[in-house]
Amino acid sequence: MIDTSPPPPKQQSSTIKSGLEARLASRNKTHTSPTSAIAPGHMQANLIVLPSIYAEDFRLLCQRNPVPCPLLAESLPGSFNKLKSYIPGISDDEVARNLDIRTDIPFYNVYINGQLVKEGVSDIKEEWSSDHIAFLIGCSFSFETALSSAGLTPRHIQLNRNVCMYQTNVPLNPSGVFTGGNYVVSMRPYASSDIEEVRRITRKYTITHGEPMDWGWEAVQRLGIKDVDRPEWGDVPLTRNGRAPFGMKGDENDVPVFWGCGVTPQEAIMKANLKGLVMAHKPGYMLVLDVKV
Amino acid sequence: MIDTSPPPPKQQSSTIKSGLEARLASRNKTHTSPTSAIAPGHMQANLIVLPSIYAEDFRLLCQRNPVPCPLLAESLPGSFNKLKSYIPGISDDEVARNLDIRTDIPFYNVYINGQLVKEGVSDIKEEWSSDHIAFLIGCSFSFETALSSAGLTPRHIQLNRNVCMYQTNVPLNPSGVFTGGNYVVSMRPYASSDIEEVRRITRKYTITHGEPMDWGWEAVQRLGIKDVDRPEWGDVPLTRNGRAPFGMKGDENDVPVFWGCGVTPQEAIMKANLKGLVMAHKPGYMLVLDVKV
Repeated sequence: MIDTSPPPPKQQSSTIKSGLEARLASRNKTHTSPTSAIAPGHMQANLIVLPSIYAEDFRLLCQRNPVPCPLLAESLPGSFNKLKSYIPGISDDEVARNLDIRTDIPFYNVYINGQLVKEGVSDIKEEWSSDHIAFLIGCSFSFETALSSAGLTPRHIQLNRNVCMYQTNVPLNPSGVFTGGNYVVSMRPYASSDIEEVRRITRKYTITHGEPMDWGWEAVQRLGIKDVDRPEWGDVPLTRNGRAPFGMKGDENDVPVFWGCGVTPQEAIMKANLKGLVMAHKPGYMLVLDVKV
Repeated sequence: MIDTSPPPPKQQSSTIKSGLEARLASRNKTHTSPTSAIAPGHMQANLIVLPSIYAEDFRLLCQRNPVPCPLLAESLPGSFNKLKSYIPGISDDEVARNLDIRTDIPFYNVYINGQLVKEGVSDIKEEWSSDHIAFLIGCSFSFETALSSAGLTPRHIQLNRNVCMYQTNVPLNPSGVFTGGNYVVSMRPYASSDIEEVRRITRKYTITHGEPMDWGWEAVQRLGIKDVDRPEWGDVPLTRNGRAPFGMKGDENDVPVFWGCGVTPQEAIMKANLKGLVMAHKPGYMLVLDVKV
């Protein structure tokens, strides 16, 4: 389910300023680039579409594990354009007006019985059925912007790379068919002296992973990460001089800081061996919402 | 902060039928027994009272770890009788009418700078200040009743003992001053063939720990439990014949099942080395709410 290749080069500029513009441009296929640079200041969401039989278990999985699996909204039964909002203070209609979940993301991936059968299709009109429920999961773009504004730009953004992500041995709270899952974490290195400020800044982003779940060189072992220089997803981490290997344990100017990661629910789904037709956004191509960060 | 002694014998019967009756009987000191047998069908809550400087971090700790730390309600700033409800579908006023947090539990414990200074006082009128915030945390009475009704009565209830509780190495998601905490779990043994039904029954009790977080003999090691026969809190577990030791690995008729436990937030507080005056209920003596299970 997860694309481990580096992300395509970032779009340099965009005339797209709102969530609705972004969705319409995906719908009429005039926007076909990754979404990271478009509609600045608007929340973007990971998409997961499941057969309705798994919806209750998945909803509860998110509720029980809100740090790695922050559920922003879900589609109403039988509908590809009406949402129920889980974002505090945001009504159902404020998440994404004039929405079509089947077309409003540039590219989608399609899975049958856990196998990727279509990669990067431009819509899922054929695959979507009235039995499907779509879930929108928060992503870390929000807090990364806040860190950059505070002069604490994440390393991978400075170096124009993908964030590194690791499998951990920290168990998710199971829910129904979703058992045996573990946290996936993203890592951004910071100087030891900056970590309290990094924690403070990201703490308030409660619906997009919030503050780090652990930090420091000892955290690598605590989280059961096998090799900090071999992330399971994304690019390998680099030192502040842009060099590999990163993993020279003990450097207080280059300490690993770990956040809950939105790859976690995808991993939980893969582990659950679901039957039937599952859909998701293609990594890097997100659903842009009307909600401001 | 935690009383590791076995609970006092259960009260055999009670004329107290409602949450309000229970609270008034504590307030006027006519009820001085543990609360487990009173006002059947009403939710009971753990109490934690903190200086307001720690309130935001603690609230977020609960939000980030809802399985072991289910936050039901908190007091409004400066108030010992008005609550904000976090229970879905329950308004602020419906949690506990005519409430006085300082008197409505039979017995309280008082801590200064992390040290127990008063145990089992009948009110906290002297200690409470307008700077304190009270937090009500869900407890497992609700799902235990449901299990018993389904013919799956927990072992410790059958044998009139306290549930066994263990320290784990599963990390909590930290929040501000609350770092380095781990899950505490409670354990109830079941036959392997009953576990799916036990999961199904307890799943819906989302605000009182919900379904188990792990189960099976392998779970003991996965959770980092040192010795299943030496719980850190509560009574030692017994086999279904009422014998110790319980820990004969591999018996499929006597499999350990672990739930998130309300001792977790207390442990997190002890680990945080808070300054000032902290209060809590005396274990076994809970706040009875108006809310039905």
